Amino acid sequence: MSKPKVFEKPIGVKDYLPGAVAKLRHIERDVLACMKGWGYEQIITPTMEYYDTVGVASSTSDQKLFKLLNNRGTTLVLRSDMTAPIARVVSSLLKESQFPLRLSYHSNVFRSIEEESGREAEFFQTGVELVGDASAEADAEVVALAIASLKAAGVDRFKIAIGHVGFLNGLFEETLAGREEAQEQLKACLLNRDYVGYRESLRELKLQEPVQRELEGILRLRGGQEICEQALQLSADATAQKSIRHLCEIWDVLKAYGVCEHVLIDLTMIGDFSYYTGMTFEGYAADLGFPVASGGRYDNLLSQFGRPAPATGFALKTTRILELVGAEEDTEGNERVLIGYDGVGRAEALAAAQQLREHGTAVVTERMTAEDWNGLEEGSFTYKGVAYTNGLPFISGVEKRAGGIGQ
Amino acid sequence: MSKPKVFEKPIGVKDYLPGAVAKLRHIERDVLACMKGWGYEQIITPTMEYYDTVGVASSTSDQKLFKLLNNRGTTLVLRSDMTAPIARVVSSLLKESQFPLRLSYHSNVFRSIEEESGREAEFFQTGVELVGDASAEADAEVVALAIASLKAAGVDRFKIAIGHVGFLNGLFEETLAGREEAQEQLKACLLNRDYVGYRESLRELKLQEPVQRELEGILRLRGGQEICEQALQLSADATAQKSIRHLCEIWDVLKAYGVCEHVLIDLTMIGDFSYYTGMTFEGYAADLGFPVASGGRYDNLLSQFGRPAPATGFALKTTRILELVGAEEDTEGNERVLIGYDGVGRAEALAAAQQLREHGTAVVTERMTAEDWNGLEEGSFTYKGVAYTNGLPFISGVEKRAGGIGQ
Repeated sequence: MSKPKVFEKPIGVKDYLPGAVAKLRHIERDVLACMKGWGYEQIITPTMEYYDTVGVASSTSDQKLFKLLNNRGTTLVLRSDMTAPIARVVSSLLKESQFPLRLSYHSNVFRSIEEESGREAEFFQTGVELVGDASAEADAEVVALAIASLKAAGVDRFKIAIGHVGFLNGLFEETLAGREEAQEQLKACLLNRDYVGYRESLRELKLQEPVQRELEGILRLRGGQEICEQALQLSADATAQKSIRHLCEIWDVLKAYGVCEHVLIDLTMIGDFSYYTGMTFEGYAADLGFPVASGGRYDNLLSQFGRPAPATGFALKTTRILELVGAEEDTEGNERVLIGYDGVGRAEALAAAQQLREHGTAVVTERMTAEDWNGLEEGSFTYKGVAYTNGLPFISGVEKRAGGIGQ
Repeated sequence: MSKPKVFEKPIGVKDYLPGAVAKLRHIERDVLACMKGWGYEQIITPTMEYYDTVGVASSTSDQKLFKLLNNRGTTLVLRSDMTAPIARVVSSLLKESQFPLRLSYHSNVFRSIEEESGREAEFFQTGVELVGDASAEADAEVVALAIASLKAAGVDRFKIAIGHVGFLNGLFEETLAGREEAQEQLKACLLNRDYVGYRESLRELKLQEPVQRELEGILRLRGGQEICEQALQLSADATAQKSIRHLCEIWDVLKAYGVCEHVLIDLTMIGDFSYYTGMTFEGYAADLGFPVASGGRYDNLLSQFGRPAPATGFALKTTRILELVGAEEDTEGNERVLIGYDGVGRAEALAAAQQLREHGTAVVTERMTAEDWNGLEEGSFTYKGVAYTNGLPFISGVEKRAGGIGQ
């Protein structure tokens, strides 16, 4: 195992140069402002949590958690999402605060990855949790807020696919009672959106013809409100029926929000978080293979922290959105004025810089000679500026515009 | 070793509730805007770095680094400061960018702590690095920017104490050549500002009387510009003399910035970072025992990353400043309007909420009955709001103000 080279950083983590930081900060600011507009209050939790509490409660599989030991030999984890840490805070610092609680965050999270996967080990999420409200109104609120947040982030074309874990659970219990392994195999296919594999698995299970038809039928359950009607016909299972009726209610509220153009019902969808108990959803941007948002209801997580309560929420995958929204940062914000000066003109030059800064202009000051000044290149690091000597600009109004060090 | 309780977080780390987050975000925004005004461009680096590169180069002692292993068994560290990571970026991604480079950051950093110490294991720093400029102008620029940044952060009364590692090194080499242990002992006393211990150590060393007087004399070297004059008299060592002359130049530039009221020269000061090679400084707020800013010149660090260059910079200790600046967050920003509605008034209520949000008002919506509405308490979670039913507000203009969940 060779030592890393001095300039290397670990696999799966990133440096963000000024251009990317400006974009990320815009998204962060605009999305958090949107969430604030919906009454969500921002919290920050520590990067490290106890493995035995938040680590175990998180939905991330054990081998994907970054673990480390503290001085006492207790195992810590780097947080892998913000949902479990917020559940801890709701149950401790906020235990006297009345429900419903509306909380937002912008945070980096960590997942240990296979080097070859090309995935990221550290990335940003911006999200909310709505704790203490079990209603369809609450589920619809977080879906509508996810839509508003994606728009605030600058994502124009996207769809939110909503489903319900209760529908598939009910359907599988009805048709494959006691056959855990078969259920898991089919769910794994749906999670990976491997519909060919799903059909093959169904054939291998050699089910009775009506059951096979019923389980194949769900692959067609993607579309608008009419899907709920079809689903009610498909399965008579009480859990499945209840789930569908809850989805219908959510759809009604989303209609009142006027956002149904962005929503489709997809009953084949399984949230990839083990803690989801009800509605789940994912946001897909046009022309992009991976989700840019995901969320859902998790009514059992809070009880693990000693304050049982229903909850629902979502996270934008902010790092991915950053790649998506392109270089539309205002280059204005990158422009800097150079004020050059020699020893004699120093005080006046620095005062002039201060004045410009107070009016919102970014100013770099450099001590230099007239030769230095004339030699400034129009390139990666030149300026529009003025130079001072002996109380008078020796060269002024020079137009050498430039941005900074870029992406 | 007992398991942590479910609601516990690790020792030395914090949750920030909405009130504290609002304050922290204000400081972050205002200080970064100030740094941008001085032409500094923001970067973000990963939380984890290789131990063998950034970990070893950092000034943090080995036992204070948080270490963990990646999938390959390579040792990683959680960054303990931003200076070494930025040196890595300057030497890799930015290696084609011309000097001087002006970079800023706002970041959490990590230090493993003794539980009993009451210190923090994770805290925020906001700072800059000015890379590629060895001049006194550059040192003065970062001191002046530290002053502007502290003001931007809302710290009113503070002093910046500046010193020079070359002065003490030169003086000790002159008077205690070859007596490494004695030098270390005296430096340790100065680092801890233990002047009684320093005098005792001097006596124990049984030095010749003029040398003893010289080394005791430095304890008086704290004050204004006149200190430089006195220091030039005290030691004839070439390194010490050169250091003092550099400090004099810095003072001259700081005069041109018009900020000397905030600065004092303190030649007993030793920066606590092993990588400092020239001027060092610390910022002290009135009535506070610990520094709120620290910085200095580090001309040898960049060469460890393969791109030798002089550099200078500082970091505000943002987490401490947060405690300092009190609860002056605008409670305005915490106010939310509640719009209650029943099933009939839903669409109109949600549209009214949307309109208010577009005008910058934070709005919470809740489905409720007239009884729910009338039962709303004036307390921790009540509102100024309106309620909708059947197209008409059933109760309107109710003044039930409240903030959120507070600190």
